[in-house]
Amino acid sequence: MGPMDRNDRITMAHGAGGSVMRELIQEFILKELGGSKAEVPLEALDDASVIDGIVLHSDSYTVKPIFFPGGNIGSLAVSGTVNDISVVGAKPLALACGVILEEGFPTEDFKRIVRSAAETCREAGVHIITGDTKVMEKGSLDRIVINTSGIGTRTEALEHNLRVVREYREMESQWLLDSNLRPGDKIIVSGTVGDHGIAILSAREGYGFETEVKSDARPLNRMIQRLLEVGGIVSMKDPTRGGLANALNEWSEKSGVGVLLQEERIPVREGVRAACEMLGIDPLEIANEGKVIIGVVPELADDVLTALKRMEEGRDAEVIGEATSEFGGVVMETSPGGKRIIPPPYGDPVPRIC
Amino acid sequence: MGPMDRNDRITMAHGAGGSVMRELIQEFILKELGGSKAEVPLEALDDASVIDGIVLHSDSYTVKPIFFPGGNIGSLAVSGTVNDISVVGAKPLALACGVILEEGFPTEDFKRIVRSAAETCREAGVHIITGDTKVMEKGSLDRIVINTSGIGTRTEALEHNLRVVREYREMESQWLLDSNLRPGDKIIVSGTVGDHGIAILSAREGYGFETEVKSDARPLNRMIQRLLEVGGIVSMKDPTRGGLANALNEWSEKSGVGVLLQEERIPVREGVRAACEMLGIDPLEIANEGKVIIGVVPELADDVLTALKRMEEGRDAEVIGEATSEFGGVVMETSPGGKRIIPPPYGDPVPRIC
Repeated sequence: MGPMDRNDRITMAHGAGGSVMRELIQEFILKELGGSKAEVPLEALDDASVIDGIVLHSDSYTVKPIFFPGGNIGSLAVSGTVNDISVVGAKPLALACGVILEEGFPTEDFKRIVRSAAETCREAGVHIITGDTKVMEKGSLDRIVINTSGIGTRTEALEHNLRVVREYREMESQWLLDSNLRPGDKIIVSGTVGDHGIAILSAREGYGFETEVKSDARPLNRMIQRLLEVGGIVSMKDPTRGGLANALNEWSEKSGVGVLLQEERIPVREGVRAACEMLGIDPLEIANEGKVIIGVVPELADDVLTALKRMEEGRDAEVIGEATSEFGGVVMETSPGGKRIIPPPYGDPVPRIC
Repeated sequence: MGPMDRNDRITMAHGAGGSVMRELIQEFILKELGGSKAEVPLEALDDASVIDGIVLHSDSYTVKPIFFPGGNIGSLAVSGTVNDISVVGAKPLALACGVILEEGFPTEDFKRIVRSAAETCREAGVHIITGDTKVMEKGSLDRIVINTSGIGTRTEALEHNLRVVREYREMESQWLLDSNLRPGDKIIVSGTVGDHGIAILSAREGYGFETEVKSDARPLNRMIQRLLEVGGIVSMKDPTRGGLANALNEWSEKSGVGVLLQEERIPVREGVRAACEMLGIDPLEIANEGKVIIGVVPELADDVLTALKRMEEGRDAEVIGEATSEFGGVVMETSPGGKRIIPPPYGDPVPRIC
């Protein structure tokens, strides 16, 4: 029995990116909407879909508060969609943006948000080429929500990357999917985890951590294309809702491999660690908006790490673990020397994180 | 001075598809987000944009009530986006769907909506291949909003249509844009106007018209591709928010031609006419979701009309007017024999119509 049977109302957990949402999708939505002949279909539940060589992605943003340390809903909406298109290996070609505003929303705030979106587009080198604006009556919407969708296409860097992978082992997929990981592949994270979630939570609840923790939201498409020029990357994913724990469990499940993590290698900013300890939250379950996890053939792991560390977006990158055939699921070797299973989170511990 | 200077708050009119929204877009959004090298860029403000031969479109749906005679927010969200992709001449290739739900939303209603969306997809022969679900706390959103975006591509029917047009006159554009109308072109509407708006209004306010007026929301992509096989079509548009009045004024302005309408030729269902008279609303300003206006070279107008009338979606089609160089704007010859200027509506008279 899924959550749809146990409960006849939608709960916050249905939108939190974890196991409850996955049950909703797998038990109902895929049955109704699946069955396309897309190259990467809905059923793959990957970061983006692909049809006729065109990558398509869509995400709605309901983040609260709409302004937070390190960004706002406009910059986040552009970064998030750019990154989801990029992690399958594509170059973002164009974005579409749908804005829904609450009647009475301050025009100056709307302008700030659009300007941030425009600035983030320039950083990513992509344009919003279409969109629409709707307004709902006062009290019908909490301020503003934004949907950003977009398309992307293959690049020469992606082809090069796949050629390099195939010097070391077989790889059927033409894209960097969740299902591509194989035992022995190294797993790299491009920087510190948990920054976005703690920044949002802190700004919302006024804990004061925001003085030291900023959201990491930023477009990573340029960084990703440069990594593909190095080559050897089999899979890539941005650990948003449900954080590293959710992303790695998706890899493990879809690739049919175990993931062994080294806790001491996972970069966590001091302010994030302190906030998590105080709030009783696992930093591995918290959303990131400017980080990727990278699965890479072991022979190329050092080269990819070196390339990452040379870039500002990747300077805190680390190899945090590897794929294995010795067990299923995600297991972490903790700093004291024990082992801990990292289960798929029920949902993101922080609601309306993105 | 635009509305942004006169008023520092967003009003319902900013989302109503009329002149207030156009001012907001032209005076602010285009300056921030414009400047792409898209084939049909944001600045065209057309039904969809085109980049590298790929048509991209996005629309958010906030319709109230979410269930109405003739459809619901799910079927509407699919039809609307399919139609906006189709009216530039493309065949919809795939859709992406972002759903935002209010916490506590009945699961059964959500299922009904997804099933309707799936059914409409089957009718259109297109799939939703990606999407996401977000949930906002109870009281933060009025039930559910949906964003549907999608991509489309050129077809052989479109190429044929353009070849036929060019047998009669020059046409530079590769797509059926708002700016393509030329003096002498005939204007056809594919059926009765105002059905969607009156159905929504009636369902919302309980006027009782809903017993006779149903929303016309339906996907028109198959009908449109069949019309392109006839050929001679220069421009096509779906008259949604702001209705026929808004759509024709956009054509007039962007094409730099006048539009002369014959009131007696415009098909209006009896129930819609009665409702409009009672409520003091102009049926020409009311949204449609299953109709298109078609600009066609005069020599092919009869052929296109005949083809339309053979199809269920177009059986009430009529030639309602023509483009002219004798004046600017939209003018209607009224049934009593006078002339009336049809100005661009300030906004749609019915809020949250789609």
